[in-house]
Amino acid sequence: MITLEQAQKMIETALAQGAEDGLKPLSAIVLDAGGHPLAFARADGAAPGRFDIAQAKAYGAVMLGMGGKAQMARAEAQAYFMAAVNGIYDGKTCPVPGGVLIRDESGAVIGAMGVTGDTSDNDAKVAVAGIEAAGFTAED
Amino acid sequence: MITLEQAQKMIETALAQGAEDGLKPLSAIVLDAGGHPLAFARADGAAPGRFDIAQAKAYGAVMLGMGGKAQMARAEAQAYFMAAVNGIYDGKTCPVPGGVLIRDESGAVIGAMGVTGDTSDNDAKVAVAGIEAAGFTAED
Amino acid sequence: MITLEQAQKMIETALAQGAEDGLKPLSAIVLDAGGHPLAFARADGAAPGRFDIAQAKAYGAVMLGMGGKAQMARAEAQAYFMAAVNGIYDGKTCPVPGGVLIRDESGAVIGAMGVTGDTSDNDAKVAVAGIEAAGFTAED
Amino acid sequence: MITLEQAQKMIETALAQGAEDGLKPLSAIVLDAGGHPLAFARADGAAPGRFDIAQAKAYGAVMLGMGGKAQMARAEAQAYFMAAVNGIYDGKTCPVPGGVLIRDESGAVIGAMGVTGDTSDNDAKVAVAGIEAAGFTAED
Repeated sequence: MITLEQAQKMIETALAQGAEDGLKPLSAIVLDAGGHPLAFARADGAAPGRFDIAQAKAYGAVMLGMGGKAQMARAEAQAYFMAAVNGIYDGKTCPVPGGVLIRDESGAVIGAMGVTGDTSDNDAKVAVAGIEAAGFTAED
Repeated sequence: MITLEQAQKMIETALAQGAEDGLKPLSAIVLDAGGHPLAFARADGAAPGRFDIAQAKAYGAVMLGMGGKAQMARAEAQAYFMAAVNGIYDGKTCPVPGGVLIRDESGAVIGAMGVTGDTSDNDAKVAVAGIEAAGFTAED
Repeated sequence: MITLEQAQKMIETALAQGAEDGLKPLSAIVLDAGGHPLAFARADGAAPGRFDIAQAKAYGAVMLGMGGKAQMARAEAQAYFMAAVNGIYDGKTCPVPGGVLIRDESGAVIGAMGVTGDTSDNDAKVAVAGIEAAGFTAED
Repeated sequence: MITLEQAQKMIETALAQGAEDGLKPLSAIVLDAGGHPLAFARADGAAPGRFDIAQAKAYGAVMLGMGGKAQMARAEAQAYFMAAVNGIYDGKTCPVPGGVLIRDESGAVIGAMGVTGDTSDNDAKVAVAGIEAAGFTAED
């Protein structure tokens, strides 16, 4: 289980890392094990639709139990499968890096983080930094 | 325009006020003038569906330009109207206190805050406290 | 069939009449006989969600072949029926005055106008003025 | 912020330019910074579903902060990403030219224009003309 304090730690770390690395304004969400939002923040200057992208990255990860990189590999191999998955989850998936699974020490998936705003790879990198700063294991 | 720092100030204030007053665990969201999320937090122990309630309270307020109390009065007078409005906005309205308009010094609506978790009146009270702590005017 | 020039005449007339009568900022839409938008305008100062309300008022009218007043009477008598209708049309109905049928000289429904922003009765009044200014018959 | 007068100026200019250039009947929408309609017009002879295309072009642009040309480049490189984005925004995106960002003199995105009816490139061209006629900067 992720506390609100841990979720905020992940988001603050990801946004601070992005600012330090000179990335574009980021948006970040942390979802619980059921795919429901615990915390979200959108940096000043980010486009208004960034909540939806961040949520979709994280939601698809936790609902499928697959990080964004595994989802992208599947989309490259079988685009129609990930398109169907998008419909199955009412549009709330985005099969690119930036949706990252959060695992506890037993290895159980306890939630997911979604980051968007820069390149997908940079989004994933700061999400991993955030998850690790809160003491959890990331699978991007 | 509401900055992320101001949005977080509103949410922290509302959740701290709720804890101080002995309210149940609260969830709070701040939306921009177009109804898009800027920041959200769900206190430990709150039910998983609280994001959706908080969002609906705030979304209905900003899209209609009416606080939760005015929406509730309309629902009491004409339930079928507010039911239709719920359909019009894809279910993202909740006509009770806790959806509060955020106005700047010129009086313009620059966003809305949605709080849920305790009684509707208590939800609205801490939302107002949060908005005022960030230096804005609240219409609940 | 309604031309774009006629649709714009209806909208300009409705908004000008509202301004002259001291009504709140209005939003107005004209739909064709299939319920599809021909023209829309939102006056400065109107809430962002007014497009959706205007569209719903007009869409319900043209799809049901009933003006807003007849829909409201039905909602007063049988709220669950109009609630079901709202679901049937994906939320795009609003059973109050302000959705007005547009009939040509043969009496055929050729579209509908939706106005929102002030009281429902005032919304309907300026919609009727707009439709008549374009040379058609209004059924509110 | 875009006034109704400015939005109508953009639309009138785009449709007039299209007629002058001998393009097919055009439809044009202007959305505010939150993706909500300010004004729309569909030229006589345009197909009934043109509102939805115009809205999708403009909505995707403003929500993502990317013009239609940048979206098309992304779709060419990663079709499954833009397909997922379409699901994320409930179908309201269209990754081709004709969705154009509107920037004010500070460079901030204050809305988007969507034009449809002729080739995507011609749609974008008249949208740019409309936005510039209203004194703003276009990013197509």
